[in-house]
Amino acid sequence: MPNEKRTAPSGRRLKLIVAYDGAGFSGWQSQARGDTIQDRLEAAFLQITGQQIRVHGAGRTDAGVHAFGQCAHVDLPPNRLAPEVLAAALNASLPAKIRVLRCSFVSKNFHARFAARGKVYRYRIATTPVFSPFELGRAWHVSGTLDDKVLRACARAFLGRHNFAGFAANRGHAVESTMRTIRRVRVQRTPDVTAIEFDGDGFLYKMVRLMVGATVRAALGKTTVAEVRARLADGAPAEPRLVAPAEGLTLVRVRY
Amino acid sequence: MPNEKRTAPSGRRLKLIVAYDGAGFSGWQSQARGDTIQDRLEAAFLQITGQQIRVHGAGRTDAGVHAFGQCAHVDLPPNRLAPEVLAAALNASLPAKIRVLRCSFVSKNFHARFAARGKVYRYRIATTPVFSPFELGRAWHVSGTLDDKVLRACARAFLGRHNFAGFAANRGHAVESTMRTIRRVRVQRTPDVTAIEFDGDGFLYKMVRLMVGATVRAALGKTTVAEVRARLADGAPAEPRLVAPAEGLTLVRVRY
Repeated sequence: MPNEKRTAPSGRRLKLIVAYDGAGFSGWQSQARGDTIQDRLEAAFLQITGQQIRVHGAGRTDAGVHAFGQCAHVDLPPNRLAPEVLAAALNASLPAKIRVLRCSFVSKNFHARFAARGKVYRYRIATTPVFSPFELGRAWHVSGTLDDKVLRACARAFLGRHNFAGFAANRGHAVESTMRTIRRVRVQRTPDVTAIEFDGDGFLYKMVRLMVGATVRAALGKTTVAEVRARLADGAPAEPRLVAPAEGLTLVRVRY
Repeated sequence: MPNEKRTAPSGRRLKLIVAYDGAGFSGWQSQARGDTIQDRLEAAFLQITGQQIRVHGAGRTDAGVHAFGQCAHVDLPPNRLAPEVLAAALNASLPAKIRVLRCSFVSKNFHARFAARGKVYRYRIATTPVFSPFELGRAWHVSGTLDDKVLRACARAFLGRHNFAGFAANRGHAVESTMRTIRRVRVQRTPDVTAIEFDGDGFLYKMVRLMVGATVRAALGKTTVAEVRARLADGAPAEPRLVAPAEGLTLVRVRY
């Protein structure tokens, strides 16, 4: 018995990279009502370990939002399972729309949320006259021509450190600071899809969807780049505006 | 009244280009039991015209198979609706997973099936260690490395005119001829997805999925290119083989 105690590894912190198709889920965060990604992951850990284990995500994604590389950590009870075995066991228990891409053991100093140094989000807009069945739930269908110059000018306007209060939805509680830095914005266009990727140190609630909503309104000629720039320079909470729909948004990766 | 008769256009033949995500449908062809693309289109025409109208497709696609550009025709009762209006009305009635991309009036000599001179099919294989949630229902997940030389050698082997009896599933009735010509095979690879596109004058039942199954088996080292070539040269029906799953297959377009 003392031997067994000595050789049994102590509880370890496991880091997970998770991909999910957000369609049909109520977002990341556990809820009393609703089927969330966190709930599904915790159910999978319960099945494997027999214990209730709390999954800590790098950030909450809203209902319908996708992830190529959400990051999370859990503290596992003592066990000898290799990370690859844990990933395979989790995937065997999870629905196919949620996949653990990688697992690794990390130091107890690592925290998926508090150690995050930034995130990359991609927003996809389908611009075909008819909305493709293959973009359903994965893009925002915008009919009308998006002016390329305006689109790129708006994207550039968000670059750098700004007070994004005018591009945040009120979550019902005050945020410490609404200053955020966007390090890179990339616009990629094909005849069918326009993708805008934002790399920033952090994002306020619905910030990407509000930036995209403002960008699309300007690119459709319903507002101007100057108005978008003014709202950013103003740094004050703005009146209700166009929030681009959740299904176009994907959390690409979390930077540490 | 005679005036009205004179100006009212007579019944016209309408050509449709249809895209659909085949997941969840029982294939193209109308069935007593099951929810098919043809059923849905006929229900949409019934809603618009108040009449039962038969939709003639260029070809049947199996349950789970997708289309970027399936072609069909219908004979409409006399009406004055423009093709764009008909397309919009159909899309308003159809589920979002089925979209009419274009409509146009054609001569009564046009027949979606009998006038077809060829078809292009694409097959997608996901080769990532973990099957991406975004490829679910849209690709065949193959774990293991696909040998590039073997893959391309098999693809080349199918080019030209052959007796494809060894690459056809028995539909329960004899086909007049099993001679078919493949005009072009294109292999496109990314680190995550391998796509094989076949352009041919016609395809036997499950022919693309049987060609892909044989190609993948060879590229995984489970059989050889020589065996694939031999089955093709033999021209005889072959014993049960690997049929690549339906969800990886898409009818790209019909050539006229």
